[in-house]
Amino acid sequence: MKKLINQVDDVIREQLAGMAIAHPELKVMIDPHYITRADSPVAGKVAIVSGGGSGHEPMHGGFVGEGMLDGACPGEVFTSPTPDQMYECAKAVDGGAGVLFLVKNYTGDVMNFETAAELCHAEGIKAQSIIIDDDVAVKDSLYTAGRRGVGTTILAEKIVGAAAREGYDLDQCAELARKVNQYGRSLGMALTSCTVPAAGKPTFDLEETEIEMGIGIHGEPGTHRMKIAPVDELVEHMATTIIDDPAYTRVLRELDQESGQWVDKEMTDEPFESGDKVIAFVNSMGGTPVSELYGAYRKLDEVCKAKGLTIVRNLVGPYITSLDMQGFSITLLKVDDEMLKFWDAPVKAPGLRWGM
Amino acid sequence: MKKLINQVDDVIREQLAGMAIAHPELKVMIDPHYITRADSPVAGKVAIVSGGGSGHEPMHGGFVGEGMLDGACPGEVFTSPTPDQMYECAKAVDGGAGVLFLVKNYTGDVMNFETAAELCHAEGIKAQSIIIDDDVAVKDSLYTAGRRGVGTTILAEKIVGAAAREGYDLDQCAELARKVNQYGRSLGMALTSCTVPAAGKPTFDLEETEIEMGIGIHGEPGTHRMKIAPVDELVEHMATTIIDDPAYTRVLRELDQESGQWVDKEMTDEPFESGDKVIAFVNSMGGTPVSELYGAYRKLDEVCKAKGLTIVRNLVGPYITSLDMQGFSITLLKVDDEMLKFWDAPVKAPGLRWGM
Repeated sequence: MKKLINQVDDVIREQLAGMAIAHPELKVMIDPHYITRADSPVAGKVAIVSGGGSGHEPMHGGFVGEGMLDGACPGEVFTSPTPDQMYECAKAVDGGAGVLFLVKNYTGDVMNFETAAELCHAEGIKAQSIIIDDDVAVKDSLYTAGRRGVGTTILAEKIVGAAAREGYDLDQCAELARKVNQYGRSLGMALTSCTVPAAGKPTFDLEETEIEMGIGIHGEPGTHRMKIAPVDELVEHMATTIIDDPAYTRVLRELDQESGQWVDKEMTDEPFESGDKVIAFVNSMGGTPVSELYGAYRKLDEVCKAKGLTIVRNLVGPYITSLDMQGFSITLLKVDDEMLKFWDAPVKAPGLRWGM
Repeated sequence: MKKLINQVDDVIREQLAGMAIAHPELKVMIDPHYITRADSPVAGKVAIVSGGGSGHEPMHGGFVGEGMLDGACPGEVFTSPTPDQMYECAKAVDGGAGVLFLVKNYTGDVMNFETAAELCHAEGIKAQSIIIDDDVAVKDSLYTAGRRGVGTTILAEKIVGAAAREGYDLDQCAELARKVNQYGRSLGMALTSCTVPAAGKPTFDLEETEIEMGIGIHGEPGTHRMKIAPVDELVEHMATTIIDDPAYTRVLRELDQESGQWVDKEMTDEPFESGDKVIAFVNSMGGTPVSELYGAYRKLDEVCKAKGLTIVRNLVGPYITSLDMQGFSITLLKVDDEMLKFWDAPVKAPGLRWGM
């Protein structure tokens, strides 16, 4: 295993220490691990918190900043953070208007954020947990029941983060996050595996000319393996799969703010339709150069046009990665004026590119 | 070879086409290849132009924007752009105050930018060419005579770009670029090779546990190969090599604006000294995750402190890459108030991260 690390057990702690030194605008807590804005809590503002296993940087710690996240809870590599990390983080960022957890749909993340929300509720901190489950590749995987949560999470963090800054209350932020999840869909592919430091070897094997379509961000299996194909073919398949994905109905749990009980909410995605405006997000899995993403973006624009979709904004780069994996993902988010306004709002966070 | 491309011959053209669609704030010309701000030329402002082989993205095209570059000239992968690209780009961005070429020290780049400067001079466009040669690893390599030009180029583009926006004239911009080059030094290392699309196989071979110290951004040989070591040891070696590098004197050519003749200028780097303030730039070669860069940054801060250097600003991320190569480089730039003011000036370009 070739990695720029010292001892495997120290990887996350040392990387967080480096982030703390590099970014005085962040407060990085080591025990338990969480990252907040240095000026937290912001009085009267709903605090937006996310988190999950490490290895997907800059997500989520790199998105902590004015106009996006108030806090992030990094677990060990590809391992859910614990409820106490989330609860301590929530206490640190709550400015009295409550805390919204944006949770990618992986079993451990969902369970632990639920526990954290209950702890908050018991302490009189308003908390809500909204799940992002946007990966159209597979339902039920190594890590989760239902669809996995991937690229739409970044878009939700940006849009809901801006809304919270604008003064949306907790219910309004939760409603907006739900809408982003219903309107956003993603699909990824891998050219190579990633290598988890603690494992010391690639998570899976791919032949020299083989790729995996529908891969998860932890290397979970996708829909199929195939011979490497020109990027235009890959993008055409991926974009078409996303755009043609039928309405998907599932039940997600949310916290009833009065009773503190979890209640089931049925939610159905709206299918894309000709005439929709979309944000297009082309993401590197980590090891793929940004230049190749632009090659993919060129074809994505063409496929969207042919389907009657207009890309009104875009994001191209490594934002939700899988360590050193080579590959990319596409996320399309149907947007309305409300979402677009918050997408365009200013934001400042160390993991974001200017020109977003 | 696993890459997200179509035909090898179309790679650069298609990637530039994607960049053009994604970034309407840029004007991307295909024949010959060059990228400018969409609002070029800016009347009365010195235009800053850079360029070089492709494969180092986001450098340079991603740095075109207000407060940084006016134009960038991408060659084919790892291949110098041609004088006509540079000349056409210079004509497109000249706002009457002249054009400054920032040139990484590779033989083809230097020669072609010189020819472009002569073409400009002949057409009555003021032009100057300043060479960046900051790589302390080796003198004379596969691609160049003297030191290679690497990470300091990015810092020069930012600082001189801001100065040009502030109203510095061509001589002042050139003087500032010279100073940045004299004050900045870099060293890189590779965990793995990169793969050039046209070659279809890795540029060089490294054993499973072997790394190369002092690597160039085109895979040029470094100072030595060694067994992979903990990142702290690598950073200690690299930072110490940079900081202890003795004064280096070389002769660089510049264009005499009156006569249009090239004149030799002797230039000597100032060694770093205890008490210096520095900008620290930790750069991914492309395939290395940003999380690992933060682990390296942690140790770099420690080494700088022990040497009496204070890191007053930093930049951590993939900015001057070598396709999919895993590895990283460190650049330290001694800064004074003038440089720091321009470093802190606002900038907006698609390849830059907020929070720089």
